[in-house]
Amino acid sequence: MENYVYAPEIAKLGHVALVSEDIEKSLWFFKEILGLEETAVEDGIHYLRCWGDFEHHSLSIRSGKTSYIDHIGWRAKRVEDLEQFALLLEEKGTKVKWIESGEEKGQGRAIRFQLPTGHKFEIYYEMDKPKGDENNKPFLKNQSHKAWAKGISTRRIDHVNIATNAEVETVSNFIIDNLGFKLREYLVDSEDQQLGAWMSVTNLVHDIAVMKDPNAPTTHQMHHLGFWLDNAQDILRAADILSEHQVEFVGPGKHGISQAIYLYVIDPGSGLRIELFSNSYLIFEPDWEPVKWTLEDKKALTYWGENSSQANRTTIRG
Amino acid sequence: MENYVYAPEIAKLGHVALVSEDIEKSLWFFKEILGLEETAVEDGIHYLRCWGDFEHHSLSIRSGKTSYIDHIGWRAKRVEDLEQFALLLEEKGTKVKWIESGEEKGQGRAIRFQLPTGHKFEIYYEMDKPKGDENNKPFLKNQSHKAWAKGISTRRIDHVNIATNAEVETVSNFIIDNLGFKLREYLVDSEDQQLGAWMSVTNLVHDIAVMKDPNAPTTHQMHHLGFWLDNAQDILRAADILSEHQVEFVGPGKHGISQAIYLYVIDPGSGLRIELFSNSYLIFEPDWEPVKWTLEDKKALTYWGENSSQANRTTIRG
Amino acid sequence: MENYVYAPEIAKLGHVALVSEDIEKSLWFFKEILGLEETAVEDGIHYLRCWGDFEHHSLSIRSGKTSYIDHIGWRAKRVEDLEQFALLLEEKGTKVKWIESGEEKGQGRAIRFQLPTGHKFEIYYEMDKPKGDENNKPFLKNQSHKAWAKGISTRRIDHVNIATNAEVETVSNFIIDNLGFKLREYLVDSEDQQLGAWMSVTNLVHDIAVMKDPNAPTTHQMHHLGFWLDNAQDILRAADILSEHQVEFVGPGKHGISQAIYLYVIDPGSGLRIELFSNSYLIFEPDWEPVKWTLEDKKALTYWGENSSQANRTTIRG
Amino acid sequence: MENYVYAPEIAKLGHVALVSEDIEKSLWFFKEILGLEETAVEDGIHYLRCWGDFEHHSLSIRSGKTSYIDHIGWRAKRVEDLEQFALLLEEKGTKVKWIESGEEKGQGRAIRFQLPTGHKFEIYYEMDKPKGDENNKPFLKNQSHKAWAKGISTRRIDHVNIATNAEVETVSNFIIDNLGFKLREYLVDSEDQQLGAWMSVTNLVHDIAVMKDPNAPTTHQMHHLGFWLDNAQDILRAADILSEHQVEFVGPGKHGISQAIYLYVIDPGSGLRIELFSNSYLIFEPDWEPVKWTLEDKKALTYWGENSSQANRTTIRG
Repeated sequence: MENYVYAPEIAKLGHVALVSEDIEKSLWFFKEILGLEETAVEDGIHYLRCWGDFEHHSLSIRSGKTSYIDHIGWRAKRVEDLEQFALLLEEKGTKVKWIESGEEKGQGRAIRFQLPTGHKFEIYYEMDKPKGDENNKPFLKNQSHKAWAKGISTRRIDHVNIATNAEVETVSNFIIDNLGFKLREYLVDSEDQQLGAWMSVTNLVHDIAVMKDPNAPTTHQMHHLGFWLDNAQDILRAADILSEHQVEFVGPGKHGISQAIYLYVIDPGSGLRIELFSNSYLIFEPDWEPVKWTLEDKKALTYWGENSSQANRTTIRG
Repeated sequence: MENYVYAPEIAKLGHVALVSEDIEKSLWFFKEILGLEETAVEDGIHYLRCWGDFEHHSLSIRSGKTSYIDHIGWRAKRVEDLEQFALLLEEKGTKVKWIESGEEKGQGRAIRFQLPTGHKFEIYYEMDKPKGDENNKPFLKNQSHKAWAKGISTRRIDHVNIATNAEVETVSNFIIDNLGFKLREYLVDSEDQQLGAWMSVTNLVHDIAVMKDPNAPTTHQMHHLGFWLDNAQDILRAADILSEHQVEFVGPGKHGISQAIYLYVIDPGSGLRIELFSNSYLIFEPDWEPVKWTLEDKKALTYWGENSSQANRTTIRG
Repeated sequence: MENYVYAPEIAKLGHVALVSEDIEKSLWFFKEILGLEETAVEDGIHYLRCWGDFEHHSLSIRSGKTSYIDHIGWRAKRVEDLEQFALLLEEKGTKVKWIESGEEKGQGRAIRFQLPTGHKFEIYYEMDKPKGDENNKPFLKNQSHKAWAKGISTRRIDHVNIATNAEVETVSNFIIDNLGFKLREYLVDSEDQQLGAWMSVTNLVHDIAVMKDPNAPTTHQMHHLGFWLDNAQDILRAADILSEHQVEFVGPGKHGISQAIYLYVIDPGSGLRIELFSNSYLIFEPDWEPVKWTLEDKKALTYWGENSSQANRTTIRG
Repeated sequence: MENYVYAPEIAKLGHVALVSEDIEKSLWFFKEILGLEETAVEDGIHYLRCWGDFEHHSLSIRSGKTSYIDHIGWRAKRVEDLEQFALLLEEKGTKVKWIESGEEKGQGRAIRFQLPTGHKFEIYYEMDKPKGDENNKPFLKNQSHKAWAKGISTRRIDHVNIATNAEVETVSNFIIDNLGFKLREYLVDSEDQQLGAWMSVTNLVHDIAVMKDPNAPTTHQMHHLGFWLDNAQDILRAADILSEHQVEFVGPGKHGISQAIYLYVIDPGSGLRIELFSNSYLIFEPDWEPVKWTLEDKKALTYWGENSSQANRTTIRG
């Protein structure tokens, strides 16, 4: 570890790069129903973000024969963290690939690598932060687009939840040890093996979670991508909108773990599960003791409401 | 029918008289958890109402060996309607019993009778409308008690839902023909027999509903008693409060029929099911065409959320 | 009074016919910002309604040199009530004019007349109840259009509030005596003269209110037209949407009288004030004692929030 | 600066130590109306926290002849940061006083010092994190007390806002330079002098704000102490509860800066202003460009709702 002089840090979840087998349906779902704004289309890739996201994109979608997640993008705290993360990861035996500036629209240089399970991560620092154009310019200086312009109008990207048929600890430890995440809450089976781990680098309860799915077809699946809404009531309005457009969903309900109000809905284009997410809580304590839940805590996953385990099969490859 | 000269009318649902096999638990549930106010206790009967109810009581509870509904009380539009209803009912062969003023605390003379199924109704007109005492006097002149004083703080009694193993039409037609209710929405089976009928004399979608339950032990069961909350968000807060006190419930969800946001919870004392109810809609059209739903309308009962049919068994005798 | 044998009855507020001096702006405001649906355009008249209104229109707009309310339309309980109202009004010296079927699109025969102040009323019974077309057909059978399709998405027309520089009692007594409304709440000055009267024929606290405005230019002004939203939170979302589009408003706040959560916004086309309105309460008691408020009840008009008196000047002629 | 080897860091706002000239009223207000829990009373000091706070106290109250803030407590990220902060501050000429473990109940060693304006800060690391006792133990493992147990039921301490008649930059620069806060948003006058500065060490828009008040009696005043509620609707419920108990307040409204839904209410015991605060947004970008507002941004302080400047006089000494 002598090649690097300080611990590089992740600042935040940046974006998810989705490949969809039915891009028209996916664009309808994300733009018309969820209400994301399109900041650019280039080389067949649609760059989207929520009205309260500041970066160029928090979701990109391109067409593919099958649906999968091309990568999950994380923003580093400093530009020099990229080199440091590359050094650290390679020392640990993780192969790192550099992506040149502009290869992903709006973004500077970046590194890409795989978790032990095969989930693909990207770390970048430089990213454009365009303002909304004339048509959807917000009134307030501290948001990027008009609020409530269309559909559900999710505010911002919140978190990712990845699934695996392998050991959860393999992934959660990798994320904690190499990327500086902290374990916030976790669920164990009767043999004290992790069934789920919720981790963050921010004050959120989780920027990423890892869930066990013994029936998953691979070690690297997606469970869902979460978007934030400011009020629990906004989740109920989302339920109405989804129902009006005959998009099926699970929820509303409240998780015990994370205390979030949720709704799970599948993008009808790609099959990717989306969680609409509100309330929850923030962690400010520097010595946070990870909250341990066991199978005896019957309400760990679903505190109340429609059982979230109905949404518990994994979706597309991650 | 020559003995009466005009159609007597029901103004509103007044109250439900509950007999509870565990009155201590029932009082804890209704007073501490739902937050009803106690206006009087006399002869072992506890008289309760919500902070937005104006009459002396919207629920009375007394102790009994088994739990059941002693009667459902309806307020007539005029004092002389009592005589008229009595005449009309007796002409149709329904036995009517008079209750003297004060027999039920706060209430004037009243008639009691049974539906063809055995459900027991009361019609009264005179009723005290006490103001809250010093401790829980509201600030506003147009409510009877302080809002949000305790627990969930339901605003007012909303409706009753009765169940039967007999034909629903027997009951719904009786209520429509003899008591002046209008059919607002109804659900039929594949042979066009009513599985449920929602009826009202007010602008509410229903003051009373009748549900078929083939497995019910008698022809005269209760499905639930509904209390109103002003906002869907208040239903979510209720879910938190019930969970904190480990009272089990079904919901939240939204009915297709009535468009109400709901939560179903069992009074742990008596076993009576309570519906916490919000949103829904009002009917002002004088020529309202009853909305017909069939079994092909999969979302008639549960538009979204935790399936209300999980709460569909009948509870105590009504 | 011998010519009529029973009291004709009003069932509900039906619609408001608005003449706008800037119809393009008015259409933008009502269709894009409030989110009303257009059911028809004929002879330059735009017929609009909310997604939860059942009749052909709850607002019509046509172009004019100055803005004013052409008439306020009330639906009778029975078709024969029209003749009865005509008889009754003419006996009392009120001139009645008949409107033929189809003269107002979607509507049958109707009578029009003026209040003593000059406010123009219409009473009709027959009215088309079209379903939303393919593009905005709702999922549920008990509403007419998709919910949340555009903008604020008000649910239904709720009430009108008219203003006068003449005596309020002149109007409120006319409405009570001739049209069968009940006084629900009222505000008096130090000499016990009405400053405002809230009246209804439905279970709402008011279908119509009359407000004193000594500075009003005529005896027949509009104060506002009210639209309903299901949740207080929807009013806050409306505040965001209006702010994004730089439409000025007053509120949110809560009235003491009526207990409603409100927002007042001026249609930038016509100058008509609109109240976005939620919560409030329902009156079911047949012997409701009108709630009297005096100038000593400082919170009668504004219980909390931005002072509704900032919206208290009258708007256009009514 | 050679004596310290790394930059010590603040993790979070911990608590405010209030001296109240009418402690009975203050305890009524904070315990019964806001609904804080009392974790301990010792030497006449009442230690309170919200149901979602994890530390021993987020507010302490003791009796005094006049009301003032004894100190504002900040939690450091590591125990060794205390020594480092002490070194750094003393090098810069700020006098530091050590407080022994237990001097403040539940708390380890701490340092206290004054800002250039005289506002008194404390930095500590060790703090007890008791669980709620039998009576108010939460169901969920990730909160400390039952939610919604009493009154408004604020979730957690959120931020402090201090005021001064001196230059705002003097304070904001001190906080940024010595304590590691980042400037998130700021408001300037026509000569580009700060009128307000919003700063944080967390993902919140602000853990502390400094406001100019030319009419303030001293350089070290409090503007308010903020408590968090999860939903905007909870703020409206708070308005009802305050009104029922005749506690005056300003709001609800929404700030442009911070995008928070607010209500301002004065503790009737001490005169300290409390902000009930919801929604707002989080900042995850490591290169956040502080948002600059000028006096031409008329809606910077009040985006909509009751004008927050009505609450803009400073309250007690800070």
